[in-house]
Amino acid sequence: MEKGGEDGGESAAQWRFVPNAALATASNTTIRGFLNLLLSNLDGNGPRPVIPLGHGDPSNFPCFRTTRAAEDAIVSAVLSASFNSYAPTVGLATARCAIAEYLSRDLPYKLSPDDVFLAAGCTQSIEIVISVLARPGANILLPRPGFPFYEARCGFSNLEIRHYDLLPERDWEVDLEMVESLVDENTVAMVIINPGNPCGNVFTHQHLAKVAKTARKLGILIIADEVYGHLTFGSNPFVPMGLFGDTVPVLTLGSISKRWLVPGWRLGWIVACDPHGVLRKTKVVDCIENFLNISTDPATFVQGALPQIIENTSNDFFFKVINTLKQASDICFDKIKEIDCITCPHKPEGSMFVMVKLDIAYLDNINDDVEFCCKLAKEESVIILPGSALGMKNWLRITFAVEPSSLEDGLSKLKAFCQRHMKQIK
Amino acid sequence: MEKGGEDGGESAAQWRFVPNAALATASNTTIRGFLNLLLSNLDGNGPRPVIPLGHGDPSNFPCFRTTRAAEDAIVSAVLSASFNSYAPTVGLATARCAIAEYLSRDLPYKLSPDDVFLAAGCTQSIEIVISVLARPGANILLPRPGFPFYEARCGFSNLEIRHYDLLPERDWEVDLEMVESLVDENTVAMVIINPGNPCGNVFTHQHLAKVAKTARKLGILIIADEVYGHLTFGSNPFVPMGLFGDTVPVLTLGSISKRWLVPGWRLGWIVACDPHGVLRKTKVVDCIENFLNISTDPATFVQGALPQIIENTSNDFFFKVINTLKQASDICFDKIKEIDCITCPHKPEGSMFVMVKLDIAYLDNINDDVEFCCKLAKEESVIILPGSALGMKNWLRITFAVEPSSLEDGLSKLKAFCQRHMKQIK
Repeated sequence: MEKGGEDGGESAAQWRFVPNAALATASNTTIRGFLNLLLSNLDGNGPRPVIPLGHGDPSNFPCFRTTRAAEDAIVSAVLSASFNSYAPTVGLATARCAIAEYLSRDLPYKLSPDDVFLAAGCTQSIEIVISVLARPGANILLPRPGFPFYEARCGFSNLEIRHYDLLPERDWEVDLEMVESLVDENTVAMVIINPGNPCGNVFTHQHLAKVAKTARKLGILIIADEVYGHLTFGSNPFVPMGLFGDTVPVLTLGSISKRWLVPGWRLGWIVACDPHGVLRKTKVVDCIENFLNISTDPATFVQGALPQIIENTSNDFFFKVINTLKQASDICFDKIKEIDCITCPHKPEGSMFVMVKLDIAYLDNINDDVEFCCKLAKEESVIILPGSALGMKNWLRITFAVEPSSLEDGLSKLKAFCQRHMKQIK
Repeated sequence: MEKGGEDGGESAAQWRFVPNAALATASNTTIRGFLNLLLSNLDGNGPRPVIPLGHGDPSNFPCFRTTRAAEDAIVSAVLSASFNSYAPTVGLATARCAIAEYLSRDLPYKLSPDDVFLAAGCTQSIEIVISVLARPGANILLPRPGFPFYEARCGFSNLEIRHYDLLPERDWEVDLEMVESLVDENTVAMVIINPGNPCGNVFTHQHLAKVAKTARKLGILIIADEVYGHLTFGSNPFVPMGLFGDTVPVLTLGSISKRWLVPGWRLGWIVACDPHGVLRKTKVVDCIENFLNISTDPATFVQGALPQIIENTSNDFFFKVINTLKQASDICFDKIKEIDCITCPHKPEGSMFVMVKLDIAYLDNINDDVEFCCKLAKEESVIILPGSALGMKNWLRITFAVEPSSLEDGLSKLKAFCQRHMKQIK
């Protein structure tokens, strides 16, 4: 929409406004930045469909369509015309109530609706908790590998990041010794993501108890990102961190995005799992309420539909989703075993992802994971996220939550690609 | 949900986390803070219904129900299951296209879909532009009276605020001399709200041309908040600021919230009305895109429904809304004329509000606008926003966008209240 103007065109140099440059830095660390790089490497000439093994959004595949019960709940809410207004900034009372009941099913105490704050997706839940905790001088512990949106929001809020490792040789458990060594008097919280993104692991009850004890000893709160809650299909069941709210205050983040396969509906939550009321005493809850006053909200009719979405979804739907994910993860694990230069330290048992190690020494003319993924996109139209996007150079994050036939196709192409680029032993 | 614990209860003093105190300051300046104060003054014993003349959300009144065409567009989008995924952070291409066409109807040049960025309501549009412009040391010009959400977001982002006056004696036009006196080399933008919230005025073409010329001379961009766009019913038609994009770069903010009466649907936009591409050259557009990468999005199916919402809404619906607003504003203006201690400097001709002056000297035992509104809530269950919420002590903002019978009832009660509290001349 550029236009050569006699007058307006030449005076640009006089304009005073310079935008906030810090945003570019924060924004560049997102997964989307890497995915855009890969997409720009696709060979536009080929007729091959792109096989997206790079992001956690299977909702476009027919086998991952949400339940009709959820769609109907939205339709009723819209046609009722009862939810066209602004909602309270903390969320509609009926929706807060529904979430409190839904999460209390798995807890030894009962959450109150006042413990629940609605957000426009877990994305906004993260934005809120990071903004609330980012007082000047504070720092926060984030997992490596993790979910880079945390890094981006911390960057924007000037909240110092300290990474602790997840240990592949110990089923991606938290390196608790490292956690202890990183904490100082300005550490406010540690984030754990369970079921794990990107590792596909599920923490045991025993390990979570240790995490809680450690956090308590250190005096930091736990942000439990459970956006993949209940999406487990291995030997470890999903254990909500809120179970240990008696030991340490927990802010649980979640959403309907993954379990109901509707990330585009933008409904998430922050829940204070904190039977001793520590988060109220320390004003963290006040501060969440304050931030909600100056933030946007999830659509009111989606909030209005939430009680019916939860109530009317059958267990059959959940079983079917879990079953499809399990099948897909099996395909993924088996296919990866056939590829020499890639090893999987831990069979995925939750979420939609697996982290695998790339042995770059086996490959000719490929120097690292980013180059690997760019060439893979170009030559095979397969998109896989390079570990560098998550702070893990020469690892890969593979999404198995795609239609099984596409997954098999994509992994066969990955195998062919690796074979073609394998160093020849002379 | 407090609980006396042997162990967890007593250790609160050891917790290290202290939240971000700056949030309380930012949050306290919102309209909601004032409305909550008034609501706390309601007499809970009375059977009287509350008459809400305090906020701009008439969508719960039957006469302000949105069009069935818009509801149907949402229903189709949900049932198609084509919009369950994440949307691109800038917005769905079809929705950007629809907004570009919709706004281009009233402009002398054609907007490109690339000029359009979708947001979760105009609330988020404001959050985005303020975050983008808040480089360290910068300042921004805001109208007084205005919409306090700007003040709140500037406070959160440490963007210095300088207020320019709107002049009641000149139909609430911008005090352009004051604008010139406030600008320095760190001023990045000025915000104008047209049709006006809270004044109910509509700027003339001639005045907007002067505003554009002034901004150009000063080298600042214009943020044109047109969330009440097209809601005009006086002698001045709605003129979009983008008409002057040739003179000065304009970021137009808007949403479907007000014209379609669906604030709860949370769909807004930011549009670069900038035929010379100044906002691209100065990286403002890049910065908006970066910020969108680390923000939440409007629900994908609302974006997906947008082209049909725009296309299928009949002019009859728009006429009916305008007509209802005009009737209501007439009732409001006439009723206020009957009240001695309140004067209206300018008959409202747009938006949903009018600003009126309270002559406190006429009243007994009421010291200012806040006390006036608190007592009014307590004694009459009528909610009106005190001007202090908008930086205008001893003024009132009255919403006339309510069901006409409620409006008449509310204003009669306001009159009775004023008569009862009038000083007796001895």
